[in-house]
Formats: sequence, structure tokens, C-alpha cells
Amino acid sequence: MTRAGFTLGELADVLQAQLDGDPTRVVTGVAPLGSAGPDQISFLTDARHHDAARLSRAGAFLVAPDAADLPGPTLRCAAPQQALIDLVRLFHPPAPVTPGVDRTAVVAANARVDVSAFVGPLTVIGSGAVVGPGVRLQALVYVGAGVEIGEGTVVYPHVSLGEGVRVGRRVVIHAGAVLGADGFGFAFDGSAHRKIPQVGGVLIEDDVEIGANTTIDRGSSGDTVIGRGCKIDNLVMIAHNVQLGPHCVVVAQSGVSGSTRIGAGSMLAAQVGVTGHLSIGPAVRLAARSAVIRDLPGHETYGGAPAIPIRQWRRQMAAISRLSGKRGSA
Amino acid sequence: MTRAGFTLGELADVLQAQLDGDPTRVVTGVAPLGSAGPDQISFLTDARHHDAARLSRAGAFLVAPDAADLPGPTLRCAAPQQALIDLVRLFHPPAPVTPGVDRTAVVAANARVDVSAFVGPLTVIGSGAVVGPGVRLQALVYVGAGVEIGEGTVVYPHVSLGEGVRVGRRVVIHAGAVLGADGFGFAFDGSAHRKIPQVGGVLIEDDVEIGANTTIDRGSSGDTVIGRGCKIDNLVMIAHNVQLGPHCVVVAQSGVSGSTRIGAGSMLAAQVGVTGHLSIGPAVRLAARSAVIRDLPGHETYGGAPAIPIRQWRRQMAAISRLSGKRGSA
Amino acid sequence: MTRAGFTLGELADVLQAQLDGDPTRVVTGVAPLGSAGPDQISFLTDARHHDAARLSRAGAFLVAPDAADLPGPTLRCAAPQQALIDLVRLFHPPAPVTPGVDRTAVVAANARVDVSAFVGPLTVIGSGAVVGPGVRLQALVYVGAGVEIGEGTVVYPHVSLGEGVRVGRRVVIHAGAVLGADGFGFAFDGSAHRKIPQVGGVLIEDDVEIGANTTIDRGSSGDTVIGRGCKIDNLVMIAHNVQLGPHCVVVAQSGVSGSTRIGAGSMLAAQVGVTGHLSIGPAVRLAARSAVIRDLPGHETYGGAPAIPIRQWRRQMAAISRLSGKRGSA
Repeated sequence: MTRAGFTLGELADVLQAQLDGDPTRVVTGVAPLGSAGPDQISFLTDARHHDAARLSRAGAFLVAPDAADLPGPTLRCAAPQQALIDLVRLFHPPAPVTPGVDRTAVVAANARVDVSAFVGPLTVIGSGAVVGPGVRLQALVYVGAGVEIGEGTVVYPHVSLGEGVRVGRRVVIHAGAVLGADGFGFAFDGSAHRKIPQVGGVLIEDDVEIGANTTIDRGSSGDTVIGRGCKIDNLVMIAHNVQLGPHCVVVAQSGVSGSTRIGAGSMLAAQVGVTGHLSIGPAVRLAARSAVIRDLPGHETYGGAPAIPIRQWRRQMAAISRLSGKRGSA
Repeated sequence: MTRAGFTLGELADVLQAQLDGDPTRVVTGVAPLGSAGPDQISFLTDARHHDAARLSRAGAFLVAPDAADLPGPTLRCAAPQQALIDLVRLFHPPAPVTPGVDRTAVVAANARVDVSAFVGPLTVIGSGAVVGPGVRLQALVYVGAGVEIGEGTVVYPHVSLGEGVRVGRRVVIHAGAVLGADGFGFAFDGSAHRKIPQVGGVLIEDDVEIGANTTIDRGSSGDTVIGRGCKIDNLVMIAHNVQLGPHCVVVAQSGVSGSTRIGAGSMLAAQVGVTGHLSIGPAVRLAARSAVIRDLPGHETYGGAPAIPIRQWRRQMAAISRLSGKRGSA
Repeated sequence: MTRAGFTLGELADVLQAQLDGDPTRVVTGVAPLGSAGPDQISFLTDARHHDAARLSRAGAFLVAPDAADLPGPTLRCAAPQQALIDLVRLFHPPAPVTPGVDRTAVVAANARVDVSAFVGPLTVIGSGAVVGPGVRLQALVYVGAGVEIGEGTVVYPHVSLGEGVRVGRRVVIHAGAVLGADGFGFAFDGSAHRKIPQVGGVLIEDDVEIGANTTIDRGSSGDTVIGRGCKIDNLVMIAHNVQLGPHCVVVAQSGVSGSTRIGAGSMLAAQVGVTGHLSIGPAVRLAARSAVIRDLPGHETYGGAPAIPIRQWRRQMAAISRLSGKRGSA
């Protein structure tokens, strides 16, 4: 669903931008500097791309207040990155939710589905589950017994929400994610690994986004908790009883082991690993591929395996690099 | 499904524990030391947590025979970790299986489903498949043609069992796992990668557990084999023709490349990688994130990339650490 | 579907091989050297396995023209690896597609499904989607609105093709793969991470294979592109706006971050990571577990984290190894 176009004057109004150019000019879409054509508006949110902007064929530019001259009309915004989000949403408004339960969905008699929710084809909703207002379960979703899903949450196909999982409001769960599988707990009895029953839950707070094929296990007892506003990428593993504070970011293919707590506003880049029973952060930043094996104080950036403060890690990398440059003479 | 409560006397009987306290006292649940209240029983299975136990508000404690005094009744057990499993199961007995095939399941006419099995909604069972007694296929499961599933096995939603996959008894397969996708085999013919047909199978022996979104590929010819009692965590990759001996443990996000054999009782911690055509173990332990590129003798612990004996690896880590401490002077 | 057997004469004809042995002898299957019996034909495509071939009980051998003597009839082929593919396909021809739409599939009224396509049980096909000739959607597949699937493509269960994803001809997509989830893009507004709308698409060119539970995100604007003939293994993460040139190979659990371009014919071994906005290749080879953090010129092999030319990396590994051998004396 896209709109045909906006005048630059309309855009300046909506984005509270200062327009330098013809307010009646119409643009029909947003595109990056390299691919935008004369009917499209582009954006320069990072001054390093100024050369690309000068060569762009875009019909207009969204820029920061102090951006240098560009070959076309400009919309100057105090927070151009935020204005860009609004701009893209203008051209690509979210599809409206058509309420109703598809006739092929299988809904338990005692589940409660709000009349404003959409339950897509071939979705299963178990006994006692509660699906809130405006929720969208796209298709082929599994909602276990007793699951609760808050207002405005969107769940993509092939997601599995295990028994009793609780999901907050305005959460987005991408295809194939599994919430509430058993935590990985066994005790060797001398001849075999006996399963430790995993009887806890999963709590996803408001405004969380969870990537495709990511797994978040249920607690062994008590909950695994993803704090409000956390953003988790694809193929991430969150083990039982992990607690992520609010507004953490976990990039693809990272894993956090059991019972570790990560403080608010922390950022794990891609392919990071964190061992279990640790306390990390708040406001920690972990470089891609770093491996955390002990508690880390907050408000610091770390890298390496095992993870150490980033400047120390860079010295380590430089020293190793010199080793090889010397053909291995240690 | 939970029971309202047990007296400490009942618990002492069932767990064969020595009770020090009032046998008529009732507890209504099990909880960790930090969160247990006066109506709950907690546990001290690791003496390092004794301080937390002393501060706990729990109404009773499951402990080892030699545990020091605690602020409440104690149940002393020779194997407290095993007794804890029994204790949790008392309060959280597994849900009973209600036999029957959901009317929305799609079952091939010549598939054989035992009358005691449960086939959940929107499950597909292909031609000639055999579903054993007491099996539970929760919902939205795909069971390919000719698949065999042994007695008492539980399969969670969105699992895919490819054509001809054989699964033993009492196996647990968590949501989104894929067994029997084609192995990754191609031969470059000078202009393109031609697919090598993958015509082998997958054999999952008894008492295996397989994590969410884990993938176990079929053999190119012959089977990929997961030995009895193996426990595999989430997002693990087991390539074609791998053979895991009995009672191996593979933690999350690890991968084992094609045709590698891992001996009985081995343990791969998280994010380990093993290259193909190797022979590892038995009873090998691999530290998290280690990378195995050659055969490894059994009954040893390894770490690092490439993996070396753990004490050697620790010296290596210490030496690297000194490099950076010296600001890179090698 | 397998045929009962072929005479060696028939096989020599089809494979254009030189037969040394009785042309009327019948073999009933293909098997590796170690497991083949007297009724089966085996193969020696790598001279290093000559000892195993000499001990094999196979009834015949497919070999290179210059292979040494073996204990049985031989079929000598100029390209034995390619001939082996043909040989296996003779015994295991692909199952024929039975056209038709299963009565339990949910197909939008305005979707176009070719009469020669197969749409398996409990598959969902959204508004305006186009399913080409001979396509096979096995079961429980999700095909979003506006998706296009080219001739002869095979899609396994639980795959999700998000809105507008375009898939070429003769593509194979294994179970659980997710194409077209949102790219991972957020901008912190001072109090929360705001979602950057992801309005681009995914383009899968002809003859691509995509592994189980792999995820390929849609572009933020513009497409994520997988070039023709690429082969991608299981549990791989391809982020938004990545472009893979033709005939790349990406082995299991590797990840490529946003907007990176990888040139034609590149090969990423298992568990590789590539950061975003890079230009790699063409014809680059990356050793398993390597981590790429800057542009890499093509026609070169790299290893390590950060990735460096492979010979330099080997010297680095040797130097580090000496560090530990000296018990850490730096």
C-alpha cells in the first residue's frame, strides 16, 4: 500500500523541516542516493556520503540543518534519521489490520480473541490463550495454551509461542521464531542425561522485536525475560532464565547462555557469545564475535574472546598481527 | 497441571530423603533460593550457594547429606540433583496425552497411526509413515512419507521430518527443528555447482532430545546418526553423514560438518565448530567456541581455535593477554 | 522411487564410460567404498581413498581414467565426480510432480497457480502471488502476497516467503527457511530504538539452493539479491541489501551483514562472519570461522579474525602456537 506522491511543501509540514526549493514539486517515493531518480526524494543522514549526494539524480534531499549545498531542493531537519523514518512511513504506511478469524484457523473454545484482532489462515490457538486488540497473527502461527498476546502485536508465519508464554504490546515476532521451547537442562545420573523439567515461562515486554528463526527458551523455573524495547535479530539464541534489561540490541547469530543478566541499553553485535550465570552491563557494547566469560562492568565497550576492553583488545590484535608479520618469530 | 501441595513427610517418602523437621508441614511448589517463599521448598545442590540458602525465605530445603545447617526443615538426599528432578516432576507432572487424530490433520490413507497417539491440529502425515504408541505430534508438524516415529516421542510445532527419517522412542524434538533436509553437497562442473543427490537418511536413536530450530541433514548415502541419549540444544547444525555416539551433548549454535564421527559421551559447549571427515572422542569435552580441524583423541578436554588440550590453550590465552598488556611489544 | 538395477553395459553407455569387465553384470545401487556390497557399484573420485577401494566389497567401481587396478569391474570416466551425480540420479530419479492444489491449501482468489504446479496440504498462498509451471510447494508453506515463484522450483515445509519476494527458476528452498523478514534497522531517538521501515524486497535468481532454517532479510529499500547458482547451507543469515554474485557458496552458520556485496564465485566456509557495507571478491575463499571486517580483493584465500591472506594467517597461527609451547613466555 503506497500513496502516489507528496509535494515538498506537504513533506516539510509533516516533517517540520525547512524547505529550500519549490513547495509544489511532487515526489513519488524515497530511495537511496545511488538509485533515486528525479521523481524521488533521497536522504543524507551521514555527512560521509556527501559526495554520493552531489552525484545523485534524486529530485530532493532530506538533510541535516548544516548539510552543504546539494544539486536539488533540500528539506533540512534537526533529526534527519528520525525524519527519514517518518518519510518512509508516509510512502509505505503499515497495512491496515482487517479484523476477524480466518475460517481455517483452529481456535480453542475457551481462548479469548479480541474482536479487533486478525487471526490468519491455518493458525492454531490453544486453550485459554488471550489475543489482544489489534493483534495480527499472519498465518500458520502456533499459539500454545495459556499464551497471552498484548495489543497491537504482529506475529509472522511459522512462529511458535509455547504454552504460557506472555507477549507484551506492539511486539513484532518474525517468521520461524520459537518462544518457550524447553531450556537445555540435564543432569547425568551415571548412565544417562536426565531431563531437568523446565517449568518456567517466557516474558516478552512491550515494544520488543524478535528476528526470524530466533529461539528464546522458557525458564527452568521463573521466567526468561526480554525487557521492553529490546531488538533481537535473526538466529539468536536466548537460553533459559536469561534477563535482558530494556532497550538492549542483540545482532544476528549471537547467543546468551542460561541465567545471564544483561543490563539496560546494552548492544551485542553479530555472532557474540555470552556464557551462563553472568552479570553484564548496563550500557555495555560488545564487538562482533566477542565471547564473554566473566562479569563485565557497564558503560564500556569490549571485544575479543575472551572479551576485554576494546582498546586493550585492539592492542592485542596489533601485537598478534606483528607476530605474523615477523613470520612467526616470537 | 500442578498439584496443590505435599507434606514434607510425603516428600521424604517419595524422595527417600531424611527429614529434619515437621512431617505435616505442607509445601505448594519448588522455587530457587532467591525467590522461594515460606510455602515453597527450595534446594541447595551446590555448596557454593550456601550463603544464599541461609538468607532464603523458603519453607524447606532439599540438600545433600553433609549440608550445613539451614533456617528451616531439610530433606537430605544422597543424590540431591536427581532428587530435585523428581521433586519438580511431582509438582509439574507431564500433561497426559489424549489419544486421537485432530479433524484438521491431513493423514495419508496408508499411514499407520497408533490408537494411543495424539496427532494435533494441522499436522501433515505422509504416505506410509508410522506413528507409534503414545506419540504426541503437537500441531502444525510435517511428517514426510515413510517416516517412522517410536513410542512415546514428543514432537513440537513446526518440526519437519523429511521423507524416510527414523525417530526412536521417547525422543523430544522442539519447535522448528528440521530433520532430513538435503545434505550440502555440490560438485563444480566448470560453469556451475551441480547438486550431488542426497539419498541417505537420518536415524535418531532412543531418548534423544533435539532443540528448537536445529537442523540435522540426511546422509548423501547412508544415514546421519544421532546416538541414543544424545541431547542437542537449539540452532545446532549436524551435517550429512555425521555420527554422534550415545550420550553426547551439543550446546547451542554449534555445528558439525559432514561425515565426522564423535564418540560416546562427548560434550560440545556452545558455538563450537567441527570440520568434516574427522574422528573425535569418545568422552571429549570441547570448550565453548572451540574449532576442531583435526582428529582428537578421547577422554580429554580441548579449547581454542584450532582446538588444543585445554591447559595448553590456557597458556596460549595467557601469553596473548601478556602481549596486549605490554601494549603489543612482542 | 528407485529402479531395480542396471547392467554395467547400460551404465557405460549412459555415463560415456570405458568399461573394464562383464557388461551383463547387474548392479542394484550405489554406495560408498566402505559399505558397498557385491550387488552395488561404488566410486573412487579421490585417489587418496585408493586403499579403501582395494578393500571394498563393491561389485564394480566408477573411477578416473588413470586409476590404479581395483578388485572388480571398472567404469572409467573423464569426469568421475560429475558421472557419479548422473549415476546416483539413475538409481534415485527425482519424484515426479503430481500437479494440483491440495484441498486443504488456502489459496487467494487472485493468486495464479500454474496447472502443472503442485500445492501441498495446508499451504497458504496470498493475494496476487504467482506460482510457475512445475513448482512444488511441499506442505505447510507460506507464500505471501505478491510473491513470484519461477518454473521448477521446489519449496519444502514450513518455508516462509514474505510479501513480494521473487524466486527464480529451479530454485530449491529447504524446510524452515525464511525469506523476506524485515531487515534489522533501528535508529535510537534518545529514549527508544525506532524501527526503520524495511520496504525493499528479496530477489532469488535461478538455480539457487537455500538451506534449512536459513534467513534472508528483505532490503530496507531496494532488494537483497542472491545471484544465480548460489548455494547456501543451513542456518545462514543474509542481512538486508546484501548482494551475492552468481555461483557463490555459503556454508552453514555463516552470516553476512547489511549491504555487503560478495563477488561471483566466492566461497564462505562454515561459521564465517562478514560485517556490513563491504565489498568482497570476486572468487574469494574464506576459511571456516573467519571474520571479515574490511574490503577484500578477489581471487585470494583468506582466514582468521580479522581475515587476512591465508599464508599470513597460518604464520600467525604458528606464532601463537609457539607462544603457548613456550608456556606463555612472550
